[in-house]
Formats: sequence, structure tokens, C-alpha cells
Amino acid sequence: MTLNVYLSGEIHTDWREQIIAGAEGLDVRFNSPVTDHAASDDCGVAIMGAEPSKFWHDNKGAKLNAIRTRKGIEDADVVVVRFGEKYKQWNAAFDAGYAAALGKSLIVLHGADHQHALKEVDAAALAVAEEPVQVVQMLRYVLTGGLPG
Amino acid sequence: MTLNVYLSGEIHTDWREQIIAGAEGLDVRFNSPVTDHAASDDCGVAIMGAEPSKFWHDNKGAKLNAIRTRKGIEDADVVVVRFGEKYKQWNAAFDAGYAAALGKSLIVLHGADHQHALKEVDAAALAVAEEPVQVVQMLRYVLTGGLPG
Amino acid sequence: MTLNVYLSGEIHTDWREQIIAGAEGLDVRFNSPVTDHAASDDCGVAIMGAEPSKFWHDNKGAKLNAIRTRKGIEDADVVVVRFGEKYKQWNAAFDAGYAAALGKSLIVLHGADHQHALKEVDAAALAVAEEPVQVVQMLRYVLTGGLPG
Amino acid sequence: MTLNVYLSGEIHTDWREQIIAGAEGLDVRFNSPVTDHAASDDCGVAIMGAEPSKFWHDNKGAKLNAIRTRKGIEDADVVVVRFGEKYKQWNAAFDAGYAAALGKSLIVLHGADHQHALKEVDAAALAVAEEPVQVVQMLRYVLTGGLPG
Amino acid sequence: MTLNVYLSGEIHTDWREQIIAGAEGLDVRFNSPVTDHAASDDCGVAIMGAEPSKFWHDNKGAKLNAIRTRKGIEDADVVVVRFGEKYKQWNAAFDAGYAAALGKSLIVLHGADHQHALKEVDAAALAVAEEPVQVVQMLRYVLTGGLPG
Amino acid sequence: MTLNVYLSGEIHTDWREQIIAGAEGLDVRFNSPVTDHAASDDCGVAIMGAEPSKFWHDNKGAKLNAIRTRKGIEDADVVVVRFGEKYKQWNAAFDAGYAAALGKSLIVLHGADHQHALKEVDAAALAVAEEPVQVVQMLRYVLTGGLPG
Amino acid sequence: MTLNVYLSGEIHTDWREQIIAGAEGLDVRFNSPVTDHAASDDCGVAIMGAEPSKFWHDNKGAKLNAIRTRKGIEDADVVVVRFGEKYKQWNAAFDAGYAAALGKSLIVLHGADHQHALKEVDAAALAVAEEPVQVVQMLRYVLTGGLPG
Amino acid sequence: MTLNVYLSGEIHTDWREQIIAGAEGLDVRFNSPVTDHAASDDCGVAIMGAEPSKFWHDNKGAKLNAIRTRKGIEDADVVVVRFGEKYKQWNAAFDAGYAAALGKSLIVLHGADHQHALKEVDAAALAVAEEPVQVVQMLRYVLTGGLPG
Repeated sequence: MTLNVYLSGEIHTDWREQIIAGAEGLDVRFNSPVTDHAASDDCGVAIMGAEPSKFWHDNKGAKLNAIRTRKGIEDADVVVVRFGEKYKQWNAAFDAGYAAALGKSLIVLHGADHQHALKEVDAAALAVAEEPVQVVQMLRYVLTGGLPG
Repeated sequence: MTLNVYLSGEIHTDWREQIIAGAEGLDVRFNSPVTDHAASDDCGVAIMGAEPSKFWHDNKGAKLNAIRTRKGIEDADVVVVRFGEKYKQWNAAFDAGYAAALGKSLIVLHGADHQHALKEVDAAALAVAEEPVQVVQMLRYVLTGGLPG
Repeated sequence: MTLNVYLSGEIHTDWREQIIAGAEGLDVRFNSPVTDHAASDDCGVAIMGAEPSKFWHDNKGAKLNAIRTRKGIEDADVVVVRFGEKYKQWNAAFDAGYAAALGKSLIVLHGADHQHALKEVDAAALAVAEEPVQVVQMLRYVLTGGLPG
Repeated sequence: MTLNVYLSGEIHTDWREQIIAGAEGLDVRFNSPVTDHAASDDCGVAIMGAEPSKFWHDNKGAKLNAIRTRKGIEDADVVVVRFGEKYKQWNAAFDAGYAAALGKSLIVLHGADHQHALKEVDAAALAVAEEPVQVVQMLRYVLTGGLPG
Repeated sequence: MTLNVYLSGEIHTDWREQIIAGAEGLDVRFNSPVTDHAASDDCGVAIMGAEPSKFWHDNKGAKLNAIRTRKGIEDADVVVVRFGEKYKQWNAAFDAGYAAALGKSLIVLHGADHQHALKEVDAAALAVAEEPVQVVQMLRYVLTGGLPG
Repeated sequence: MTLNVYLSGEIHTDWREQIIAGAEGLDVRFNSPVTDHAASDDCGVAIMGAEPSKFWHDNKGAKLNAIRTRKGIEDADVVVVRFGEKYKQWNAAFDAGYAAALGKSLIVLHGADHQHALKEVDAAALAVAEEPVQVVQMLRYVLTGGLPG
Repeated sequence: MTLNVYLSGEIHTDWREQIIAGAEGLDVRFNSPVTDHAASDDCGVAIMGAEPSKFWHDNKGAKLNAIRTRKGIEDADVVVVRFGEKYKQWNAAFDAGYAAALGKSLIVLHGADHQHALKEVDAAALAVAEEPVQVVQMLRYVLTGGLPG
Repeated sequence: MTLNVYLSGEIHTDWREQIIAGAEGLDVRFNSPVTDHAASDDCGVAIMGAEPSKFWHDNKGAKLNAIRTRKGIEDADVVVVRFGEKYKQWNAAFDAGYAAALGKSLIVLHGADHQHALKEVDAAALAVAEEPVQVVQMLRYVLTGGLPG
């Protein structure tokens, strides 16, 4: 069994790298959005031409990013969505809803302080964790039956 | 043509009432989540029994609310998602993603200050507006072809 | 909002009647399997001719009952599955799995003694309760926002 | 033609090993749930933290196991569900219903004493057998057209 | 519960009338193909213009009839397919396959002499009968739980 | 049987009115796009605010119109697409492709001069005609079995 | 581009071998039902035990064969259905209907004498031919753009 | 991540070759229709026999081409549709609608003069560009996050 795992959400810490490194040796294929913040914001206008309006500047970029995001979620068996400490992160919650509607197995990763605000997202998940290492342990268990310790 | 419209998101202002009142006479059926904040938070434990842990207290309630939310979105032709000034509102973004994945027509309603943070949500929408009256105008146009003024 | 509710499972107590009576006045349409045990067992051979083998006797009946069961589940928004005190009740668990795969909102109703054995079924549910009155309270809350007491 | 076969149900005998060994040389890819009973029961709390309540202890584990179970069933062409002599085995019947609703080819494996209680499950199956060797014979026939001796 | 029933197949006897008359008082909506043989054969050229080639004459008609046939099958909960004594009746078997792939409940109606030739069609059905009255009895049982006699 | 029919395409002649008038008395529900050319072009900016760029002016309008168009096509049993004498009419061909991918019954209406250019669209259709009266005759035949003359 | 092609229908001539040999060198993967008539008829009872009734003898076999048939059709891009000179061949027409409902590209292969009786099946096809070599030419054209001669 | 990209539309310039050459080294699999205009027009009659009527000549060819076109679009993650300077190109718009209804990521490529006429097609797209090099830049960005310059 090969698991396709999409890593959505927060892009300012190294949680993706921790999971990918921890899962070394497991039969997992990871996908992620473009995590270069500047490139992600400006990709639309960089390729399709400048826009005087911020709304259309962002709209062009968000749609171009959606090609990758949709492909990543639709190909995934498991979608991990990480909510960090800062920012609105509505795109993370949007991805979670998108994944849930497609029937993907959803894992949500967030700190305890976000618990109440994320209750609807957590309620749609098959697992909720606080640390990337727990996601690695889940992937290992799902693929091999092995538990930590 | 009857439009089924689900009104998702912010529950602390009267935007739903404005839209419903403005749409009087149009062939629209509206649905919404339970908008009584306290009832929505506590419904799970009130019916299924208390939980010492806040996480499971919230989980029971969020799942019970999901019965109504899913029904409302799945039955809808148009999902309007309102982001207010306050709170994280991740459930609103989750609903938007859920609706988008089901191919629903999405209208997003938010103030200009949220524009950049909502760019991925807006990019999935067929219309973005700031005021409830614009949603009424959209529904009137979609159903009758009539434009304001 | 009209809720279509399918009442699956145990047929030897009056739990369906309790729910239907309790939900009077709510905008709910209920469906159920044929709950006459003898008719349900023998319907196939009664209409299509006797079978010397018990397997085919049962097979003819189970398939004929499936016409009603599938229609009931596929039309439902909410599937309530009741596990009673006795019998294997594999058909109830089968219906729960069928409903879950179709994305129906699942409510499971069972006594505390079955908790561990039903953990996979409960894990697929949006609500788990012990008493029919709780299902009535859920339906009332989902449709009206009103809570008991 | 490669067949993806998911082996669901009873975990206390070696029926899976018999089928996998018997099918050696055939173009089959097998998947199964985690069959280590203790690991399967405790995986949720082992990774996501202890729960004082048995219900949530089980709920955490059942959901984590569902990541593997759903993937296994959704990837399968054929789902074999084995009912053993003991226990309620509602998860097996749940898997059968889940597989049936997805249109998977279902093979049910059980002893004669369970015939009447499993009539609805058998009625949804394309084949019903008592012994693992018969499943091997079916897989061989489906893939090569060859019949036993 | 209202059952939508599509009556497909043989058009030279009054089996449809027997079923519709027998089902009087039951909550059933029946649909059928156009059963006027000449109109059904010539409808395409009568409306869209003559064709010198028999193939295209038939093709135009068969496609126009498909508008009704597809609508009838897609709207149906139950598809009854009748095979008569004469003719190839490949359209009946085609409808049965079409209905089966859409997950419709299939009832096949044919004489004993066609049993072997129809084994694949019967194997996809939830019920097989010889006489129209049996179909009436099935519909009555499915809707009311009542059995004949 | 009620047919839901969506009338897509050319908006500069009265072909819709001819079909609707001709179908009087038949059990048909018609839907159409907004056919007021100016309103259709400007609806987006009229409601959501002016755009200096023609591209975004048109984009806003086209998306708002898509709410109605998608609803009309998705609700339809039959999609009639009319290609007139003038203009590119790519939206008509787009609607035809959209309807074909959803498995809708497609009727294409165009003059003989467009035959070669529309061959791919015609090849996806169940009927091709030149005059609105032929569409009326088709709807009458599909619903009643009656042929002209 | 790799084409998955399922070869359904008549089993008494070497049309499958002709197509497979003719397509050598093309990027095609072929699948077929079991074409050993005796094995196909008796597979059910050979593996699952004898049946005194011919109906259930056939039923067991037809269902077991359905595991292969469904897999073959569901995996296919193109379903070729061959109608021979003899027998009822309702299973071929059933497969054609099944494939059509799944949106598969359908090629029908039959002699001119069956033209009228197969008009509904042909009307659902993207190509109709009389000789296996034409199917080879189609596959070559579809994959390479090359035409015969 | 491997992207499957279907290149639909205009066949008289080398835009496909430009994109394929530009994307060298990227993990992309390209598919296209048959772009030999004469072969594409005549393939049906060349294989299945001549037709005296131009309509059926074209119909046979268009359906045969549809085997490839549908496979290409259904397998694609991204559908690029190019509108050239000349011809009606309704097949390109049809493909765009077909792709949009299937939820494919759509990129539209056309000159500025077609902007208004293509507004409905552009509104369904995730990106709109004028030059093939921009499509290459998009594919590179989607796959690697790298931007031009």
C-alpha cells in the first residue's frame, strides 16, 4: 500500500520537512503547495502580466496555485492540514473543507489554543494532533501497524 | 427556476435577515446553520451527555451541527459565505471549500480588509461582494435578469 | 428544510414508533424497512416460488427487501441505525456501512454494553445515543435549533 | 489484469495467510486492516494521547484505523469479508456495506451456521464461500479461467 | 415512499397494462418507452428528414428514443425489464445493463425457456419473475409490506 | 414524465419563444440564460462595481451569468443548443460540451451552412435539427409518442 | 497514450485473436471475459458446490464471471462488443448498456443482418463495424493518427 | 507530481510543439487530438465505409475522433485550449465546456481580439494567456514553484 499524502496549510515553519524526514523508508508520496510565499503571491502576474488592482493581482495568483492544490488534494489518500500560530489561514480551512467533501482522510495539526475555533474542522477529521511527529507515527501505523515506543 | 441558497458564516450581524428580506418575492429557498451561538456550542452535550474535556464537548456539538450544515450545502445551488470582522471563522472557510468541491456556485461576502487573506476563497467563487444588498441584487439578476437602478 | 430520515436496524422493540411520535410536528419524512419479521423472511418465496434450500429461500427474500432498503437509504439525509440487545444484527451494520459510503449523516443508537463492539460504526457516525428520545431531540435541534429543557 | 483484493473481517485465524499463500503466482495485490488486535485497539491513544473515557479511547483508534480501511476498500476491485465463529464482528458487516455501496465485487466467507443471520450481506455478494481455498479458486478462475482439478 | 418504476422491453403484449392496473392504489409512478412500434421506428426521419440508408434511418430514431429511455431509467428507483417470446430484444438487455451500471434495482421478467440465455441479466437483478402479477406483488410488498394471499 | 429543457445559445432571434409557444400543453419546464444582451454583458460591474479593464468587466459578468447557466444545465434533462448565423457563439459550444460531459440529452439546432464546423458538437447530440418547430415535434414525441402529421 | 480495451461478446469465433494480433505494436492493453464456454457455465458450482436447480447453477456462475466482467469494463477506455451469427447474446447487449452508462467509448461489431435489431446499441456507440480488421484500424488511428492504405 | 496535460484546439500553427519543447525536463505527459486535418476529417469513412451524405461522413469521423478526445480530456489534470485566428473552432469551445464540467483545470490560450467572445470560456478557466511560452511558465511554476526571470 502506497499512501499519497498532501501537506496543506502553514508555510512559515518546517513542519513539512519534519514529516517527510520522519517518514523516510515508508511507502508514502508527499505533495504540497508551493511554499515560497513571494512566488506564491506573485506567480499570476509574473506569468500573465501585471494588474493595477490588488484584487486581480491576487486572483490571478490564487487561481494558478489552484492548479497545483486541486491536483494535490484530488490525488491524495490523506490530507494533512496544519494551522500555525499566526495569520488567518483561511486557505488551510478551505483545503480542509475541499478534502472533506471529496471524502479524503483528513488529519488536522494545530496547537491547543486553536481548539475551539477549529472544532468544525476537527470534527471532519479522522485524527487531530499537535506535533508533526504524531503525523509520522500515524503514517507508520497506517502503513505497517507499528506503534511508537 | 427556484434557487436553493445556503447562507454560511458569520453569525453576529443581521446580514442573513437583510438578504432574506431583500429577496422577498423572488423564487428562493434559504437555509442557514443554527445561528444561536450558545445552542450551537452546547447542543452535543445537551442531548448526548456532558463531557469533561472541552475537545469532546466541542466535537459532539460540531458533529451534530454538521448534520444540518451538510444537508444545507448539499441541497444548495448557491452557497453564500460571509466573513465578518472578528474571530477566526475557519468554519466559514471550511464550508466554502466543501461547497467548491461539490461544484456549488459560491458567493463570498467580506470587507476590503480581508481581501488578501481570502484570495484563495475568492478565487473559487463566482462572485465576491462587500454588502448583503449586492447578494440580493445578484439573486434578483440570476432569477429575473433585472439589474439594480 | 425537510429531513428524510431512514430508521434501520432492530425490529423487536417500538423505538421507531417512539421516534416518529416524538418528532410529530417536525418537518421530517421517515422511512423504514419492512418490520414484520415473518413477512420479511418469506417475501421472496411467497412471491417468486418456494426454494428447497434455506440459502436461496433467504437470498430471494433479502434481495427483494433490498429494493426497499436501498431506496430508503439513498433517499435519506439521515440514517439512524439501532442495535438492540439480541441477535447478530449484521444487516444493521451493513446498512450503516452502506450509508457511510454514500456520505449520509449517520446516527447510531445502542446500549452501553455494545460500545466496544460498535466502535468502528460509531466512529463513522455524526452522533451516538442510547435512547430514542435523544434522536428526537437531535432532529428537533437540527431542524429548529431548539434544545431540550 | 491485476486484481486488488481487500481482506476484511475476522482476525483470529490464519485465513488471510491461507489465501495469500494459495494465490501465489497470481496477479493479485492484497491489502488488509491492521490485524494486531492490541495495536488496533490502542493505536489512537498511543499516538494522540490517553483518554479517560473508553468511548473516546476507542473512537480515536477506530478513526485512525479507518484511514487504512477506507484506502484498502476504495482501492480494491474485490472485497473479501470473513465472518468467524466468535464476536459480534459488526466492523466486518460495516465494511461489507461500505464496499457494496461503492460497487465493489463482494465475496463473503462464513460457516453454515451464520447463513441466516448473514442473508442480507450474502445477498449483496457476487460469491459466498465457506473455506479460504474457495476464495483462492475464485481468484484463479477470475484471472486465468482455470478451474480446480 | 413513492417508487419510480420504468417498464422496459417487450412491446407486443399487454404486460405493462397488467402491472399498471394491478398496482392501482399503490404509490408508484410508472414510465415506459414509446410502445407504438411504427412510431418508434420512424420517429427520427419523420421529424428530422428522410434517410436513404436504413442504418441512418434507424440511427436517427434510436437516438431520439434514447432521450425518453435515458430519462426514464435515470429517474427510476426500479427498472423492470421484460423479455418476450420473440425477437432479439437486444434493446431490453441493453437497458438492463444500463440500469445495472447506474445501481438501479432491477427486476427481470421472462419465461422459463429464456433462463439460461438470460443468466447474466438475471444475476444482476434483485428479483426474477415469470408473470406480471408477480411484479405487482413485489411492488405492493416493497411499499406496504403486504404479501399475497 | 416532466421534461426539464434548457435552451442555450443564440439570443438574437425568437427561436426560444417559438419552441415555448409550440410546446404549450406539454409537460415541459423551460429554462434559459438571461437573453437581454446588454444586461448580460454588464451585470457583473452593475452589481459588484466598475472595472477599468474590459477583461475583468467581462469576467465579472460571465461568472455571475454562470450561476444561472450551470443551474439551468444541471437541472435539465434535455439541453437544446442553437447556433445562429452570426457571431462566434463559443459560449453555445461551451454549454454543449458542458452538457455532454454531464450526460445530458443534447439537441443541436443550426443551419446547413454550419454543418461541417459543428460536426463534433453534432456528434455528441441525440438529435440535430434546423428549425425550432422540429424541436417542438421532438419534445411532443418524447413525451406523448405522437408524430407530426 | 495507452488504451485499455475490453473485448465483450461472441465467443465462438477468433475475432478477439484477430484484433489482438492486428494491434501488435500498438499501446493497447486488452481484457476479455473467460471465453472457455464450459468453464464459464460451470465455474460457480465447480468452486462453490453443486446446485440441483439450473437457475441457481447458472446464477452462481454468472455472478462469479461478473467479477471479471465488471473489472474489465470499469478499467476500459474502449469497450468493443461483438454480436455473432448465433444465440441470443443478451449478455453482450447487457455489457454494451453497462459500458454506455459508465460513459465508456463503445465500438459495436456485427454483420449487416443484425443492423435493425441492434439499432439502439449502435446508437450508443462511437463506431460500428463489420470486421475485426476495422477495429484494429480504429485503434491504430486513435493511437497514432494513421489511416489504412 | 506528474501532470497530465491535454492540448486541445487550433491545429494550424505549431503552438503544441512550442509547449512540448519548452516543457522538456518537466514531469508532464502531453496528449492531443489527431492534428492531421485531412485524416481527422476522413477517418470515419476511411475505416467504416463511404457515405454519400456530408453530414454522416463528418459524423462518422467526429465520433471516431471522440474516442481519443474523451480519453485525453478524462485522463488530464490540465486542459489547455487554444483558439487561433481563424475558423469557428466550436470543437475547441466544446472541449473547454466538457473539461470544465469534469472539474479539470482549464487554461485558455487566445489573442486579445477574441477576449470578449471568449468571456464565458475564460471565466471557467484557472488561467488565460496569449502565448505558448506562458503555458510553459505555468507548468514549470505548478510543478517546481519556479518563476520566469
